[in-house]
Amino acid sequence: MKKLLVIGIGAGNPDYITMQAVKALNQVDVFFLMDKGESKDKLIDLRREICERYITDLDYRFVQAHSPERERGEVDYRSSVDDLNLAKQQTFERLINEELSDSQCGGFLVWGDPALYDSTIRILQAIQASGACEFEFEVIPGITSVQALAAQHKVPLNQIGRSVEITTGRRLAAGQVSDADSLVVMLDAQDAYHQVADQDTEIYWGAYLGTPDEILISGKLKDVADEIERVRKAARLANGWIMDTYLLRKP
Amino acid sequence: MKKLLVIGIGAGNPDYITMQAVKALNQVDVFFLMDKGESKDKLIDLRREICERYITDLDYRFVQAHSPERERGEVDYRSSVDDLNLAKQQTFERLINEELSDSQCGGFLVWGDPALYDSTIRILQAIQASGACEFEFEVIPGITSVQALAAQHKVPLNQIGRSVEITTGRRLAAGQVSDADSLVVMLDAQDAYHQVADQDTEIYWGAYLGTPDEILISGKLKDVADEIERVRKAARLANGWIMDTYLLRKP
Repeated sequence: MKKLLVIGIGAGNPDYITMQAVKALNQVDVFFLMDKGESKDKLIDLRREICERYITDLDYRFVQAHSPERERGEVDYRSSVDDLNLAKQQTFERLINEELSDSQCGGFLVWGDPALYDSTIRILQAIQASGACEFEFEVIPGITSVQALAAQHKVPLNQIGRSVEITTGRRLAAGQVSDADSLVVMLDAQDAYHQVADQDTEIYWGAYLGTPDEILISGKLKDVADEIERVRKAARLANGWIMDTYLLRKP
Repeated sequence: MKKLLVIGIGAGNPDYITMQAVKALNQVDVFFLMDKGESKDKLIDLRREICERYITDLDYRFVQAHSPERERGEVDYRSSVDDLNLAKQQTFERLINEELSDSQCGGFLVWGDPALYDSTIRILQAIQASGACEFEFEVIPGITSVQALAAQHKVPLNQIGRSVEITTGRRLAAGQVSDADSLVVMLDAQDAYHQVADQDTEIYWGAYLGTPDEILISGKLKDVADEIERVRKAARLANGWIMDTYLLRKP
């Protein structure tokens, strides 16, 4: 039986890796690296670095594959994601069938935690359900950017005895959020914090969390929202990409 | 200046510890262990084991202090927590003043992640604000039981592009939750899942996650809710305590 490990490697800081992930890395024969184009080459390099740093058994190899891209523009978000995941599924099937022999172990390295806004688990389950290839898989959790954000700002995610909602910039912009007093926003490409009604809300924003490029800004939205937009735009331009997240806390 | 490290040691499995946490453990001169009474001695022992396993510099000591307890019964929850945190604040102040000399480093070991349903960050900030003693502190994130739950069930926390709400059993029982299609419930002492209106909801339940005692149950509420209640009660009786959490996913 082929085995796959979906390994959360944490968000940014190589020290976010867990002992469990280190042990998992050392079991892997073939690492599948999904290439998302030039601007994200740095992320592929970071994955290679993590392997070099933590793997003591050197009998492993990398297989790099082009990661299908989601269709952008005037398309339905959900169906564009479904199309994307179908294309990814075909890529994964090919990798598992062609690059992994029986009893070998394949590894997917996932930024943050595979259970939060990542499609690897879902795709592997779809492949298992389709019967296209046989394998078992395990999931190894990792530190998310949400946790890095809270740690670096030294702020609890929840108020005492209250809820926390984790959502996307897309949902915040569309007003599809609850009235939770603690709201974590990920994947916000559109500066949706400008649309929060109560601009006395506190924002704890962070980009490139846990890396040497980390930027942290916090304060009331009315005081810092413009600064965040400006800093975010400049950093994105300078680095070619940005990964950022923020916590909104009602006054 | 005194330094404090609030170290997330993950939920249950000693392998959930991060490299960052291991480095932090090795900086600590004095570990403050909060004693919550006999039934939770096992948790204190696990903390000691983690130190023994991962600390290479043996120049550290433990200070065990009785952790104040929250008043139970017919009291307002929020004010009982405020009282508790005030009592904890006084305990922490005494520990920092009496057990730590200048330039020494104190450590608090927190199950899971210090940013999620833990009071240490809040208490340290209250002490800093009061000016009762001077110190700086850092927060090291850890794998939460929420992440352990998702990994062990091999289930994503969110549906594609949707929100996740993390809440308490108390809030679920009181109907104080949003209509998020993914709801994670922690600290549920009252089997609040019985009160979910749509019993076709899927539940992914786990107790003692990441430990040898781990129990996982999943299925539709109408099929497994009674089993979970029965297993939960028996396990709590057998171990003297239980730590469990679950994900509810709307059909």
